[in-house]
Amino acid sequence: MNFCSDNVAGVTPEILAAIETANRDAAARPYGNDAWTKRVEQHLTAIFERPVVAFPVISGTAANALSLSVMTPPYGVVYCHDEAHIAVDECGAPEMYTGGAKLRPISGADGKIPVDALAKVLANSCAGDVHRVQPAALSLTQATEAGTVYKPAEVAALCALAKQHGLKTHMDGSRFANAVAHLNISPAELTWKAGIDVLSFGASKNGALAAEAVVFFDEKLAETFGFRRKRAGHLISKMRFLSAQLDAYLTDGLWLKLARHANSMAQRLVQGLTALPGVKLLYPVEANEIFIQLPVPTVAALREAGFEFYDWPDSEPGTIRLVTAFNTQQTAVDHFIDTARRLSNVAA
Amino acid sequence: MNFCSDNVAGVTPEILAAIETANRDAAARPYGNDAWTKRVEQHLTAIFERPVVAFPVISGTAANALSLSVMTPPYGVVYCHDEAHIAVDECGAPEMYTGGAKLRPISGADGKIPVDALAKVLANSCAGDVHRVQPAALSLTQATEAGTVYKPAEVAALCALAKQHGLKTHMDGSRFANAVAHLNISPAELTWKAGIDVLSFGASKNGALAAEAVVFFDEKLAETFGFRRKRAGHLISKMRFLSAQLDAYLTDGLWLKLARHANSMAQRLVQGLTALPGVKLLYPVEANEIFIQLPVPTVAALREAGFEFYDWPDSEPGTIRLVTAFNTQQTAVDHFIDTARRLSNVAA
Amino acid sequence: MNFCSDNVAGVTPEILAAIETANRDAAARPYGNDAWTKRVEQHLTAIFERPVVAFPVISGTAANALSLSVMTPPYGVVYCHDEAHIAVDECGAPEMYTGGAKLRPISGADGKIPVDALAKVLANSCAGDVHRVQPAALSLTQATEAGTVYKPAEVAALCALAKQHGLKTHMDGSRFANAVAHLNISPAELTWKAGIDVLSFGASKNGALAAEAVVFFDEKLAETFGFRRKRAGHLISKMRFLSAQLDAYLTDGLWLKLARHANSMAQRLVQGLTALPGVKLLYPVEANEIFIQLPVPTVAALREAGFEFYDWPDSEPGTIRLVTAFNTQQTAVDHFIDTARRLSNVAA
Amino acid sequence: MNFCSDNVAGVTPEILAAIETANRDAAARPYGNDAWTKRVEQHLTAIFERPVVAFPVISGTAANALSLSVMTPPYGVVYCHDEAHIAVDECGAPEMYTGGAKLRPISGADGKIPVDALAKVLANSCAGDVHRVQPAALSLTQATEAGTVYKPAEVAALCALAKQHGLKTHMDGSRFANAVAHLNISPAELTWKAGIDVLSFGASKNGALAAEAVVFFDEKLAETFGFRRKRAGHLISKMRFLSAQLDAYLTDGLWLKLARHANSMAQRLVQGLTALPGVKLLYPVEANEIFIQLPVPTVAALREAGFEFYDWPDSEPGTIRLVTAFNTQQTAVDHFIDTARRLSNVAA
Repeated sequence: MNFCSDNVAGVTPEILAAIETANRDAAARPYGNDAWTKRVEQHLTAIFERPVVAFPVISGTAANALSLSVMTPPYGVVYCHDEAHIAVDECGAPEMYTGGAKLRPISGADGKIPVDALAKVLANSCAGDVHRVQPAALSLTQATEAGTVYKPAEVAALCALAKQHGLKTHMDGSRFANAVAHLNISPAELTWKAGIDVLSFGASKNGALAAEAVVFFDEKLAETFGFRRKRAGHLISKMRFLSAQLDAYLTDGLWLKLARHANSMAQRLVQGLTALPGVKLLYPVEANEIFIQLPVPTVAALREAGFEFYDWPDSEPGTIRLVTAFNTQQTAVDHFIDTARRLSNVAA
Repeated sequence: MNFCSDNVAGVTPEILAAIETANRDAAARPYGNDAWTKRVEQHLTAIFERPVVAFPVISGTAANALSLSVMTPPYGVVYCHDEAHIAVDECGAPEMYTGGAKLRPISGADGKIPVDALAKVLANSCAGDVHRVQPAALSLTQATEAGTVYKPAEVAALCALAKQHGLKTHMDGSRFANAVAHLNISPAELTWKAGIDVLSFGASKNGALAAEAVVFFDEKLAETFGFRRKRAGHLISKMRFLSAQLDAYLTDGLWLKLARHANSMAQRLVQGLTALPGVKLLYPVEANEIFIQLPVPTVAALREAGFEFYDWPDSEPGTIRLVTAFNTQQTAVDHFIDTARRLSNVAA
Repeated sequence: MNFCSDNVAGVTPEILAAIETANRDAAARPYGNDAWTKRVEQHLTAIFERPVVAFPVISGTAANALSLSVMTPPYGVVYCHDEAHIAVDECGAPEMYTGGAKLRPISGADGKIPVDALAKVLANSCAGDVHRVQPAALSLTQATEAGTVYKPAEVAALCALAKQHGLKTHMDGSRFANAVAHLNISPAELTWKAGIDVLSFGASKNGALAAEAVVFFDEKLAETFGFRRKRAGHLISKMRFLSAQLDAYLTDGLWLKLARHANSMAQRLVQGLTALPGVKLLYPVEANEIFIQLPVPTVAALREAGFEFYDWPDSEPGTIRLVTAFNTQQTAVDHFIDTARRLSNVAA
Repeated sequence: MNFCSDNVAGVTPEILAAIETANRDAAARPYGNDAWTKRVEQHLTAIFERPVVAFPVISGTAANALSLSVMTPPYGVVYCHDEAHIAVDECGAPEMYTGGAKLRPISGADGKIPVDALAKVLANSCAGDVHRVQPAALSLTQATEAGTVYKPAEVAALCALAKQHGLKTHMDGSRFANAVAHLNISPAELTWKAGIDVLSFGASKNGALAAEAVVFFDEKLAETFGFRRKRAGHLISKMRFLSAQLDAYLTDGLWLKLARHANSMAQRLVQGLTALPGVKLLYPVEANEIFIQLPVPTVAALREAGFEFYDWPDSEPGTIRLVTAFNTQQTAVDHFIDTARRLSNVAA
């Protein structure tokens, strides 16, 4: 009954089985020159309805930082939401990988960068002035850190603006599956058709052991990626076991099936909780994260009942984050709601 | 029948089973705050007969480059053998992680740095001269890139010299298990008792899926490591699956058992081959790598017979590298020898 | 009649004479092993009433970025005002020199960091959390970018808070002379006695050709500076000519004399202008910079009359910056005021 | 009577006068938007008989490291002579500025890279292999660190080979003037006509106070240079005083006049010394440096007589370096020779 994060969950059986199957071959060519890695690119080409160049890596931070490293010079600026993972939770990985580029955080409701806020920042970017760091890239998080989802038109508007200013565009899709599952549209619509150049396509938070794919829609940007990945220690030798995870993840829509489950558990949970008195939802729940304020005694009692989750920092007392995952059980969700309801009744 | 490298081999069953077992817990704390990661440190403390601080990572390049990042300032020099993996095969990872430190390659027979060669280089290191990069660290590879093994006294002599010059000492133990198995001594003797501060303790080449441990004997050097690992994208969220590999690897001497097998297969192979006419061994075979010159037609015929291995660059024609692994089968070795012998007889 | 910046001014005669004098010696030891460089450190020791370690460099950006490079690890955070030169005007030099550390801009009135704003940011700094960049240094600008001056007690309060959180403290003293001249107190009171560890002591904006001194009150921080300066290409070979500038600058209070003149010209100018109708002063004028809003026609007419100055970006129409320098002539100031007054009368 | 280095000499009167003249203007636009800087580019365009893009900087290390920063990716290799200043004497500046690229030193007689040695290294460069750093640039030193001078055909042969392998080509012309003076040919012949893309054009060692120009023959390479120079703290605000030095240096052939003097003093000195018994010249003297072995008592006695020079490290006893400069006096040279001769006679 752990709602701390989707990274507390383990590995979905299909992916574990794929690793075992990959191990049946006594030998396979290392460093990605194997059949599994080739299949990953084929899956992604099918899913995105166009040729792509893709590189498996083992963490979202690596996917993001390596992506950015080919999108900005060391004197560049990457625009992102001020709660973006790259800005807040990666201990400066983008700065390390880019050789010291600067992140420019932009505030916005519901975890989203407002177009007019980006426009204002870009209007003051001093492009061409040697005293200033130079506009280089835009990074969007999809689903956002607030558990909301950019609509394709929102992505397109931001990317169009970015392109007008010569920016490259990145999507941190650590929870990309949850976003696609929510919108129920073609992944192409949400990415390159909306103007995205590079996608960090997450799997670790959605049932993989440790796997993400960096997907290049702008092939030219991919040219130096292989060297940068190796140089960063992110080219693992027995690559088949990383690619096998992604191969299984992308086969027969497993990635969407897992995300749909996580999303539906979040919906069930938020609907149950918002029916209770004294409850305040911080953001619309569109993916698998719920940011919600409960009565403080309820929060304490839920913990005593064995539920695990994080208090949300910089918020009013009783504000917590609940994350569902591919393996969240409906009984756990219902138990959570029942427990909260019981406490709520007691309090009333 | 693949003798290309120990990284073409898959995962040993005990380690795969450990991953599966780790997956039985529906949830575990992420980022290394889990029971498996704790056990890894406990194993290593037992194996090295002293407290250590240890960090799992997923590749040897990451282990090496992150280790070096805490051992040298950006204006420092790392001394290493001129065939060292860090110097030749990591696409500049040490330079990236150290912020631009310099590697100073030193030549030496059998893949080893000679004490007098190191002494000579250090005597000309211009310590304190602001125009020169400054002596910072020594990195030894154990087993070496030539498939040989430093004796404890050799390690101790090099480390003593290094310490006299204020250097930190690193061991690239990508094949540390093979070295220990060969020497049949306490791992402590070969590392901290001989003056090593930090060890990249390899598992990937010896049956793990993707796992290495950075082991600090000098605890102070470990202080900033956690930040550096995260910043590099090498702190994986579902750490239990990385640590579970190392946990199994270090349990009941599995790591040594696997290495002993690889070493013994190499011995069997080299003994069979050196009994043939026209064969020249480049280096003593002490671990699981054989560098050997065979008649050119024999090499071609072995390939036709389905054996896979690398030609060795910068060598005389017919020079190849053969690597055995934890899962190399005796029948494959014997078949290799028989094939070579048959061709040899034909030729004669 | 140029009020664009103090860097449009040339070299004060005393400093030019010192360069010529230094050139009378046919030879001098290079790289700072000369008499002039030694004297600079002696002057600074006298001025700051305690032993210091000092390094001449040729630009304020170099002084700042090199200072920060010894005050933060690559995963560190440097807190500064959001209009600080290091944050806005150095094209990412701090990020380059620190290996990718992050600047954390803090807003505050009159170009100053408010103590409570710093306290709030530090309270949320997540020290020790590997996912977050780590608190490392505080940088104050004195005089500020708004032309105001921190009082010793303000510096002390900020530094005390910084020290409680383990930060190192830096002062960007590009206009340090103007600040000291304004406060008319001992330089020691404004720096190390108030908790500053490292000072970028400016001279270029105050009559030097190209010269700044990095002054270390925390001697330990200076240990690696020499290597970092050389590595950055900032150790000039004929150092005597850089040090001779500082030697003259620091002799017999020339630095304060020049700054007092610039400050008094600014006072004369601002008093003249604020006596006119329709004028709005943005910040108190405490050093040699004036940020002021004039009627738009007045601004245009002043330009036509041959005066040069910058429009101030992100401000209401008619907002300009006026900077006085060591060589600003009283007649030019009076002419500026007269011209503005005449236009003002015409308008009325 | 100082023969230690050309950087112990001061500033030639013409250049000092130019600084004074530049100071007559009470104001000038900062950061290189001034008439002096424009003239520097015009001079260089005339001297090199083609349009060039040029950037003044204050040190040879800055010129070299900034040049290399636009010629190699962080995972690149820069080939250079193993005694090159960039490899030996810049405390790792190239590694810092390139984000961790690698220098690959190549040995060769008389300070020159032999074509066949470069060819051999490039043949083994493993271009395209992600495990290896990638061939990026060639840097030649002209005049060399051995005081010799590459002939145009030698430069052309090395550059042609470099271009075949896709390398960019850099010339460290810290003593470019001495090389041109020796060859007495068009600077164009020695640079872009021979295949050079970027030149560090030195002035500091030849009579300037602190000034070098980075000259781009490949305009595309210059695109990002302005940002990189600023970011490194090498864009000085009162640029007119830096450019005024170069303006004077390049006017009416002053740079060649000064170099011819230095070269002729070196010729006079070496001819005088090699006429003495027991003297061994290490390299042909083609510029303004002499590497020579004298009898040990002679060396000691010369020092006692007040001459200053460096013992040459890693050489036989009595080996010294003598450097002449733009201001070396013939009487000092003759006195040196006479003193050595007298001692030589005494010894005989």
